[in-house]
Amino acid sequence: MSVFTPVPEPILADWLKDYAVGRLVELKGISAGVQNSNFFVTTTLGRYVLTLFEGMPRAELPYYLHLMAHLARHGLPVPGPIANRHNEYLGTLQERPAALVVRLSGASEMNPGAAHCEKVGAMLAGLHLAGQSYGRRQENPRGTGWRSATAALVRPFLPADEQALLDAELAFQASVDIESLPAGAIHADLFRDNVLWDNDDGTPRIGGVIDFYFAGYDALLFDVAVTVNDWCAQPDAALDPQRTAALLEAYHAERPFTDAERAAWPAMLRAAALRFWLSRAADFHQPRTGEMVLVKNPNEYRDILRLRAAGVPPLPL
Amino acid sequence: MSVFTPVPEPILADWLKDYAVGRLVELKGISAGVQNSNFFVTTTLGRYVLTLFEGMPRAELPYYLHLMAHLARHGLPVPGPIANRHNEYLGTLQERPAALVVRLSGASEMNPGAAHCEKVGAMLAGLHLAGQSYGRRQENPRGTGWRSATAALVRPFLPADEQALLDAELAFQASVDIESLPAGAIHADLFRDNVLWDNDDGTPRIGGVIDFYFAGYDALLFDVAVTVNDWCAQPDAALDPQRTAALLEAYHAERPFTDAERAAWPAMLRAAALRFWLSRAADFHQPRTGEMVLVKNPNEYRDILRLRAAGVPPLPL
Repeated sequence: MSVFTPVPEPILADWLKDYAVGRLVELKGISAGVQNSNFFVTTTLGRYVLTLFEGMPRAELPYYLHLMAHLARHGLPVPGPIANRHNEYLGTLQERPAALVVRLSGASEMNPGAAHCEKVGAMLAGLHLAGQSYGRRQENPRGTGWRSATAALVRPFLPADEQALLDAELAFQASVDIESLPAGAIHADLFRDNVLWDNDDGTPRIGGVIDFYFAGYDALLFDVAVTVNDWCAQPDAALDPQRTAALLEAYHAERPFTDAERAAWPAMLRAAALRFWLSRAADFHQPRTGEMVLVKNPNEYRDILRLRAAGVPPLPL
Repeated sequence: MSVFTPVPEPILADWLKDYAVGRLVELKGISAGVQNSNFFVTTTLGRYVLTLFEGMPRAELPYYLHLMAHLARHGLPVPGPIANRHNEYLGTLQERPAALVVRLSGASEMNPGAAHCEKVGAMLAGLHLAGQSYGRRQENPRGTGWRSATAALVRPFLPADEQALLDAELAFQASVDIESLPAGAIHADLFRDNVLWDNDDGTPRIGGVIDFYFAGYDALLFDVAVTVNDWCAQPDAALDPQRTAALLEAYHAERPFTDAERAAWPAMLRAAALRFWLSRAADFHQPRTGEMVLVKNPNEYRDILRLRAAGVPPLPL
């Protein structure tokens, strides 16, 4: 989340008349995230997050919004999108597709312990199980096709050793049998900043899972790998054994891993690392312009990929 | 909310398999309320409220659940009902119709000030406005028909002076032209214990409006009167001028009162008082049995009715 497109208050106040959320009290840009423009919106009746979709095809947006509605409706702590007076989730603001969602309470935990990772593992499995009954289907927008295209784009900017790493990884991933893995709607970006924690009674509790705008249909295990690479990595990129075990065991308790998933685990950790190395390298070498734009360091995921490719512990179950 | 029907943990754990909310961690009866059996349910993935509907016709329940879903979907802090794996909100547990809803955070404020009343007034107007686009219609279950029937039931238990008060009020209410008032889906029970406050940033904020199981189609002003009689009454039953003005002005800012509503205001305050005097008197003289049952004092609303019938200030707008 960043702000690429500013929204003047009077324009938002007018736009909100199409919703039943009361009148505008406060508007504030959000500096986190890398893809869309996001704002905290406070009205006389509640607190919301406004997203202006930047460069995402409008036709693809209902998939995300209805997925969030589906998961919220099935009891998961996901921000429900808000329908306007025409009963639609998707509107238009500042010539961009725009949506308002519930603002969930809680704050990100950037230094999670095993207790956090346990909750995240259970929640991820819960999202996957609830996603099985979601009727719409849209491919993972950062899946294999995107990886090839982005690798070609990024490759010329890389030094020789990174080009070699990239070529070897693409060749390896082409040999992986992803079709044998259980698939469904995945979040695909369940990083620490996309989970809000509510610690009101002293124990960590997930108050919200946010930012579903990279979601898509793909192997569930790819989502687990994305999550483990972020939540369980030490500063040297190696996996922390306690946190990794806590996350994977809690996931397994809700949705047991299959034999095919056990076999594919090392490859999925590498695929997940590759995906974020590529997107960060692309954003780094070809940055976008905006009012508040966050560019993340690509080297973190280059190092994670290198280390995962050198060998990882098996799925400990 | 009370507990009339106990639910053993293993039975609930099994029932939850039909939902995508994870596995049961804790079950706890709720002692508040007067109508249904209610429980706090904590699972591996979230916190919920379970309601077993006691003596309410099953056919009438979708009206309440879909109203809550409608309001939540339009951005109001109302507990969304949770769909099971068959995509239905209404299930069956312990031979009772049963529903699971999101547990919202926050706590009731039993000693509200003008700042709380202002938020409640705005929220009530917001509920009324959002309710205008709700497609289902079901009469207020505690409307005029119920009042006549309950008055007949309760009258024999009352002393002579209260019988006279009741007879006079029924005659007066029969003369009121309620048809001229704007109508729609009303909460009809927005007492202090049905609003949850989240004070996380120091200013009172409504985190949840709960218990829609007395909702129905009726005059919006009747709902305002129910709310004012509870939130703005002093211990001597008189209306506190500051709190009353704060609530009504905030309501008016979201949905302006009509001339017909201005004329009907004193009568609506009396109708709202009568409704709760009658239900409490009926519960008091003919109590139900259960594990935890709350019986409220009917005299509070007898006194409120007496005082409102003696004259009230006009709608101050």
